[in-house]
Amino acid sequence: MPEWTELRDIALEAREKSIPKQWLLPEDQLPPKDQLNVLDVARSSGILSAEELVMLDQDVAELLEAYKSKKWTVRQVVTAFLKNSVIVHQLTNYATEFLADEALARADELDAHLASTGTLAGPLHGIPVSIKEQLTLAKRINHGGFVNLIANPPPAEDAHLARLFRAAGAVLTVRTNIPQSLMHLDCENNIYGRTRNPRHLLLSPGGSSGGEGVSIGARCAVLGIGTDIGGSVRAPAAFNACYGLRPTALRIPVLGHSGVAAGQESIRGVAGPLANSVEGLELWMRSVLEQEPWEYETSLMPVPWNKDVQLGEFTVGVMWDDGELMRRETTSIVKPHPPVTRALKHAVDSLKAAGVKVVDWEPLDHQRGWDILAPLYFPDGGQRWLSAFSATNEPILPLTQHALNFSLNTGKTPLSIADNWDLNYARETYRREHHLLMKARGVDFILCPAYPGAGVLQGQSRYWGYTSIWNILDLPAAVLPSGLAVDKAVDGGGAVEGYEGRNEMDREEVKAYDPELFHGFPIALQLVGKRFRDEDVLAATKVLDTALKSKR
Amino acid sequence: MPEWTELRDIALEAREKSIPKQWLLPEDQLPPKDQLNVLDVARSSGILSAEELVMLDQDVAELLEAYKSKKWTVRQVVTAFLKNSVIVHQLTNYATEFLADEALARADELDAHLASTGTLAGPLHGIPVSIKEQLTLAKRINHGGFVNLIANPPPAEDAHLARLFRAAGAVLTVRTNIPQSLMHLDCENNIYGRTRNPRHLLLSPGGSSGGEGVSIGARCAVLGIGTDIGGSVRAPAAFNACYGLRPTALRIPVLGHSGVAAGQESIRGVAGPLANSVEGLELWMRSVLEQEPWEYETSLMPVPWNKDVQLGEFTVGVMWDDGELMRRETTSIVKPHPPVTRALKHAVDSLKAAGVKVVDWEPLDHQRGWDILAPLYFPDGGQRWLSAFSATNEPILPLTQHALNFSLNTGKTPLSIADNWDLNYARETYRREHHLLMKARGVDFILCPAYPGAGVLQGQSRYWGYTSIWNILDLPAAVLPSGLAVDKAVDGGGAVEGYEGRNEMDREEVKAYDPELFHGFPIALQLVGKRFRDEDVLAATKVLDTALKSKR
Repeated sequence: MPEWTELRDIALEAREKSIPKQWLLPEDQLPPKDQLNVLDVARSSGILSAEELVMLDQDVAELLEAYKSKKWTVRQVVTAFLKNSVIVHQLTNYATEFLADEALARADELDAHLASTGTLAGPLHGIPVSIKEQLTLAKRINHGGFVNLIANPPPAEDAHLARLFRAAGAVLTVRTNIPQSLMHLDCENNIYGRTRNPRHLLLSPGGSSGGEGVSIGARCAVLGIGTDIGGSVRAPAAFNACYGLRPTALRIPVLGHSGVAAGQESIRGVAGPLANSVEGLELWMRSVLEQEPWEYETSLMPVPWNKDVQLGEFTVGVMWDDGELMRRETTSIVKPHPPVTRALKHAVDSLKAAGVKVVDWEPLDHQRGWDILAPLYFPDGGQRWLSAFSATNEPILPLTQHALNFSLNTGKTPLSIADNWDLNYARETYRREHHLLMKARGVDFILCPAYPGAGVLQGQSRYWGYTSIWNILDLPAAVLPSGLAVDKAVDGGGAVEGYEGRNEMDREEVKAYDPELFHGFPIALQLVGKRFRDEDVLAATKVLDTALKSKR
Repeated sequence: MPEWTELRDIALEAREKSIPKQWLLPEDQLPPKDQLNVLDVARSSGILSAEELVMLDQDVAELLEAYKSKKWTVRQVVTAFLKNSVIVHQLTNYATEFLADEALARADELDAHLASTGTLAGPLHGIPVSIKEQLTLAKRINHGGFVNLIANPPPAEDAHLARLFRAAGAVLTVRTNIPQSLMHLDCENNIYGRTRNPRHLLLSPGGSSGGEGVSIGARCAVLGIGTDIGGSVRAPAAFNACYGLRPTALRIPVLGHSGVAAGQESIRGVAGPLANSVEGLELWMRSVLEQEPWEYETSLMPVPWNKDVQLGEFTVGVMWDDGELMRRETTSIVKPHPPVTRALKHAVDSLKAAGVKVVDWEPLDHQRGWDILAPLYFPDGGQRWLSAFSATNEPILPLTQHALNFSLNTGKTPLSIADNWDLNYARETYRREHHLLMKARGVDFILCPAYPGAGVLQGQSRYWGYTSIWNILDLPAAVLPSGLAVDKAVDGGGAVEGYEGRNEMDREEVKAYDPELFHGFPIALQLVGKRFRDEDVLAATKVLDTALKSKR
């Protein structure tokens, strides 16, 4: 096996070759070093025409309409998104490979199809889609955040989910960056380095689908394909002011994803959408499930997408703090920052104004959930991961070690087979009790933070609890923008001043709140529903989204 | 922990107390020792009235009609079944506990309910149901075939599935015997000894739901509740000339079942029905699933029962031998006995006469399936099982050791966590390939043996392959009577003479065929369908059953 630097250089060279250089910003147009918000740089660069800028702001339905009415061709739209992608990448380092040649060729095919048949090729005809590097693509380098995997021969076919997107008519335009080992809520690895947040270059784009967060949040694609085992779709959606869904496990394909723990079933990674609207999330899910993926990937459940959900009246329980009323020692509950609490209050007001019943939700002992989950992330004591790193002498990054420590610090790993059974059983008991509690309290959805803060500094995203709890519970969870941003005048200091903290993590996270740093940064929310009722979660997220927008 | 003999005596005393002695056959009416078929002894004993004998032969629909029309009360019917149960138990040792007092009290409640409301209390109103000991019942001894578990304090509530049966109106009349550790296709343990087959006392009743096989096959109950992780519903159904279904995993509750491996998810045990008709199997499944068990047992999939299946035209593939065309070394494929092959031919003729398309089915490398499955039965190297036995010095029975050896002989157990992942992944790949092969060949159902022979001697059921392959593939599989019996004049010798065998197991099983011993013993068949299409399997089993009956 070659040294990690050698393999890294192979991947870097492949990326470099893939970049359509004609759309790069000239050196002299780059923003000054002290400009931290670069979200609008591409738009004001002159590289995109006025019409191309309009294209970037369209959602799926509008693009399909534009194609049908011959207002735009797929080639035109894909070109606009590619241009934006190249510049955003130049500013944030979010892409691992551009698929420009293939995308434009596919665009031409789709344009020809429409011209000759008068019909769209599928529900995602000509929709620019970015795809997390973890999903393998045929005849390309695939690594999943492990340098040693770069040495693997390219597979003969795409990951299952990628095939379904292509079959639905989508145009895959760019592959996006991920952290080492996929186990950070951040986006740094030894191949490409850090991806930065275009809204604030010092802040994290989230992770592990960090590149996807940037891609969708900066409108480099209309839909994004992410994956999530502890918050990896939702943190990037939250930190990039877009929408994301962690679906119930066993609905969406995961076959052909890179990694070192295939066959690990105790805590399942899932694939899920990022988009700029609830409609985008819904169409993403529907386009996949209408293809009956369980007929190929037989581990999936044959539960069709219900596109005619009728929610009726429903009740939202608000979880203000994941350790509320906890009266025992904890290691892993954390108080949200003041801006997040303010956004929750704003959401409650908005829901109530829309006639939705809202109650408080006292969490079901999230420390217990964490104690089940933590050893299951690396039940082998991390041996598979450590072997992968040592194979090329790849250095272990701090947040990788932080994640490994989730399991190692329990003192229980490597688990025996029987230890693993006991944790599986505890997990099922916890899920059952949580479901029965929601029913007993008459709560249909739980509104909660997506992260303790609105954002987090690069390399500092240590607390997973607000997202990972829904992974151990296997509940569908959507992230959406609250419409509010951090405001140092309103939020500054606040409840955090004088707060003692309930454990080391809680104290660390409280210190991470810095009103100056985060001023102006958007605040996200998370809405969680019942297992296999992903459709209901999206329907309720739509109600909340509409309520939030009408309150602005 | 007390010695095993002490705990055994506690369970034996509880059983003894539970037997309604007034219905036992007097000593002088017991059949002679050399009478091996005792199926009709109860019927000719005079203990049941002529009308009670008619009751025993009714199926669910007919009983419900009789209750509604006030022809019979539930008390009358339950009494008839209890009488028969007591005598059959006397002859076969199939029961672990009679629930007579509770059953008659419940019968009176149901009769009162019907009298006062004019409606039935549920879809199984007053239907006598027997229940495998493995399903725990509140305030009673529960052991699941492990003597040490007798020492456990009784649980506060019944197993989930038992609760659902009660809620559907069923009357639980008797708990039935199981083998040590539940891991025999036979029915012997250190508490009650051997259960015998009422059709031939030297032969096995099958297992692990052996007591259920006797119960339903000898009409001690109308429906039976079994469980199956390698053939444990199907072998007893096959050897007792009744009907059984191994449902797809994660449809039917398993919460509250005794055992030592809760949380083991790599190869899932399932609960399933035994009945005297396909309609019985269907109603059992429907009555459970209409109660939406996933709303309580959240590990179950929310897949409702489809009671309006329209099969249309379908194709059956016949698997004549599970090692057909295998050209490599094997340890676990076995040639069926001549009577079983004859029954398959008869079924093919019957299906063709009914207009069903039938083709040959060459199996997808069942040795590969076994090699994945074998280490997963005791992935901990059997440590949990051995600890349970050694806790009370309970002797390990030969078929228990035989099953333990499935895993131990692989030389791979105890598995590491990562070994287990690899096997999970191999299992999913195998399932996918099998599904795609069925689709590619246009085969909707696979017709195959339920066991290499029509029956097997007590203590000799060593080969699981014809049933366990559908557990590793997680496919729904029904067993039904072929309507034929072994006929030494027709089957004798046959293809077995001079057959060399392809491995040690194959040679052993061929030797087990004895036309004299099995003469007159009924021959079963197995029909297998696609995952989560349990409804389709039952619909096709109905077609096959009707075709077989019309050919008689």
